[in-house]
Amino acid sequence: MLTLNLPDPQSKPRIVVIGGGFAGLNFVHQLDTTRYQVVLLDRHNYHTFAPLLYQVATAGLEAPDICGPLRKSFRRKHDFHFRMLQVHGIDPATRLVHTAAGAIPYDHLVLATGTRANFFGNQNIQAHTLPLKTVPDARRLRNHIFQTLERADLTDDPEERKRLMTFIIVGGGPSGVELAGALSELRKHVLAHDYPDTPMDQLRFILVEGEGELLSSFSDKSSREAYRNLEEMGIELKFGMLMTDYDGRVATFKDGTTLSSSTVIWGAGVTGEIIEGLKSDSVLKARYVIDDHLRVAGYENVYALGDVALLTNDEWPRGHPGVAQVAIQMGKRLAKNFNAIARDRPTTAFRYRDKGNLAIIGRNRAVADLPPNLHFSGVPAWFVWAFVHIFYLIGFRNRLFTFLSWVGNYVTYNRAVRLVLEPTLEEELREGEERFSVIDRR
Amino acid sequence: MLTLNLPDPQSKPRIVVIGGGFAGLNFVHQLDTTRYQVVLLDRHNYHTFAPLLYQVATAGLEAPDICGPLRKSFRRKHDFHFRMLQVHGIDPATRLVHTAAGAIPYDHLVLATGTRANFFGNQNIQAHTLPLKTVPDARRLRNHIFQTLERADLTDDPEERKRLMTFIIVGGGPSGVELAGALSELRKHVLAHDYPDTPMDQLRFILVEGEGELLSSFSDKSSREAYRNLEEMGIELKFGMLMTDYDGRVATFKDGTTLSSSTVIWGAGVTGEIIEGLKSDSVLKARYVIDDHLRVAGYENVYALGDVALLTNDEWPRGHPGVAQVAIQMGKRLAKNFNAIARDRPTTAFRYRDKGNLAIIGRNRAVADLPPNLHFSGVPAWFVWAFVHIFYLIGFRNRLFTFLSWVGNYVTYNRAVRLVLEPTLEEELREGEERFSVIDRR
Repeated sequence: MLTLNLPDPQSKPRIVVIGGGFAGLNFVHQLDTTRYQVVLLDRHNYHTFAPLLYQVATAGLEAPDICGPLRKSFRRKHDFHFRMLQVHGIDPATRLVHTAAGAIPYDHLVLATGTRANFFGNQNIQAHTLPLKTVPDARRLRNHIFQTLERADLTDDPEERKRLMTFIIVGGGPSGVELAGALSELRKHVLAHDYPDTPMDQLRFILVEGEGELLSSFSDKSSREAYRNLEEMGIELKFGMLMTDYDGRVATFKDGTTLSSSTVIWGAGVTGEIIEGLKSDSVLKARYVIDDHLRVAGYENVYALGDVALLTNDEWPRGHPGVAQVAIQMGKRLAKNFNAIARDRPTTAFRYRDKGNLAIIGRNRAVADLPPNLHFSGVPAWFVWAFVHIFYLIGFRNRLFTFLSWVGNYVTYNRAVRLVLEPTLEEELREGEERFSVIDRR
Repeated sequence: MLTLNLPDPQSKPRIVVIGGGFAGLNFVHQLDTTRYQVVLLDRHNYHTFAPLLYQVATAGLEAPDICGPLRKSFRRKHDFHFRMLQVHGIDPATRLVHTAAGAIPYDHLVLATGTRANFFGNQNIQAHTLPLKTVPDARRLRNHIFQTLERADLTDDPEERKRLMTFIIVGGGPSGVELAGALSELRKHVLAHDYPDTPMDQLRFILVEGEGELLSSFSDKSSREAYRNLEEMGIELKFGMLMTDYDGRVATFKDGTTLSSSTVIWGAGVTGEIIEGLKSDSVLKARYVIDDHLRVAGYENVYALGDVALLTNDEWPRGHPGVAQVAIQMGKRLAKNFNAIARDRPTTAFRYRDKGNLAIIGRNRAVADLPPNLHFSGVPAWFVWAFVHIFYLIGFRNRLFTFLSWVGNYVTYNRAVRLVLEPTLEEELREGEERFSVIDRR
């Protein structure tokens, strides 16, 4: 069996971390690597600031503004080793992680793999809708949005134009709400001017939510405020509607309703990224069951952090929310406990400190819930949001550039990023060519 | 036959422009659209500042820094109509341009299609080398560079590592020279720190030129200066070598030499983007033959501009150089002549005003030839270059951001853009999986 090329950890224990999201990043950052060797694996060579993916999708920011190269983040970290690899399986008996480039022996294993979009087994929906979980997703969505509008500009068939100009967003959580708000601003400040030959007032953004309210994890006040804002911004809001099918042209709902649309953005739910190899009773509802020391049930040296971990207690009987703050705090807690063990000091149980919820809806429109019982909206919420987000972005360049991009967008509404970088329009047109009577080429 | 959906030009003549490069952009900008309707076609929805593509390829800048969305550039232009389309053919007899979305009637046709990489009919070279002519090319090259280094970090086979760490640049023109310089700086300031487990001193950059010198269109002084600089920066320079084959692993040269390399960047030449439909005697060496009024030989109402046009005279017996300045000046000249005709004023023959040649090689290393006979290098040349390039970038955001990116790079050597956004590493590893003995997954 081939073992991956890595320096010998000498007498130190080796900790292998799978996933460079908020949990993995904060774990590595906090870990004392004079006492442990740390190997970080991720299929991408960058960390994604996921809460801003919708900005990349709507041409407000470009990918590097919300990504931090992992090698650069830990350039000065002692005994840190990054490998860009996807993990194929874990073998807890032999303490090995398996990848296409070889196996990696571990002393401790930290699972911080996060989640992926949940299509609930519906293959049509998976094949034709656009999720927004990764940077490639965000860029694919942006390409699709601008290409669909270019295509609408080319047609004079009113039915086809209507279909091309109808965008459905599935899911009324923070990312659905933020995306809907950003699309509405894009329509008002950019699209209405860029497409003089297409009736942009026919552009429809429909947000479809299966339950009865937006932002169900927020306070009722914030939820109502979000509703009022989106309605004012011309977003069509539909509740209690479950999409059962989508073929790329027509969306079908459980009540039999159909909607003709070329674009369905899928944000209806997520599911944990579970790696094969652990006992089945350590996994519940696609999450690793962990104790208050973040240890996976049934294992001494396997830990899980963030969205893929399921930690229940009296305060959080259904588990902790899948937000960045939980992942950050878990990552730090686990590293501090490792550092304590290395110094023969006592470890501390994880306890989540809720810092509140924030969502931005548009220019001067935002909602914020701060514990224990503070809710605000409008300009003050927007500033809190902007500050918090910029503060957590990795690295000076990202903070500065994101800030400048935002200021630039707010002053000029200048979506300079609206480039179709992977055009497929020609292919689509070729496929539909029989509908046109193009003369033979000589 | 379906005609593309476009507003009726009323009594005004319609000018169709194919290509939104330097020539097309400057033509549209200068044209008086109260006298003409203008339709611009491009397969991309943005203009590319091509002289900076190598910066995108080496993670110094991101695509939006060097791209201007075409709709935005002409948002305030009267009677301007952009359509994102590739042209399939021209029919000068019926005065129609054919696209997949329908035909477009024209009164005047402006061909500004530019060039594409010339592989001289070698299909292996075309399939396996990486050109650098478009933004997608630049991003593909960047992905490839960083992924190849990640891969080198995964192997412990010395032969494979050597192959992965050998980069060949074919062509010693400005883009090859600038790219080689940028790669050398990337090695010194970024890669040497980012890959502690890989011997980055084994990284080889080999510039291969078929003729006897670098920058053959520059003065001898600048050419020698470029040679000296690249050699100091650790670029291996090979002259008089013609690549005859490349299979993705081994490059073969005319003299029988071979070089093992995973990366060949192809900049050995370009050829005009000729659209089918014109008489064969109006095309010579893949360029449209034009007169001093930029009119294609044999046609009254068809014009060609920039790199795809061939205009010979006493001063330029072999045609004008394929540089941005020629394209810009041709675009402006033709538009001014159209404007003159609309006002019954005399037209003016095109005359190229040579503004000189500039190439940047690295930090404080640049060469410049200014007419009639001024050559300088080093810091002053670098400042001239930076000023000229920023000056010509479209739009405030691009100028400001490019400038800030540069300043940021110069101060911090912070290549924040080094993201592998389209990873294919896993696929490659899977293909090579038989070489590893990965255990079966359970």
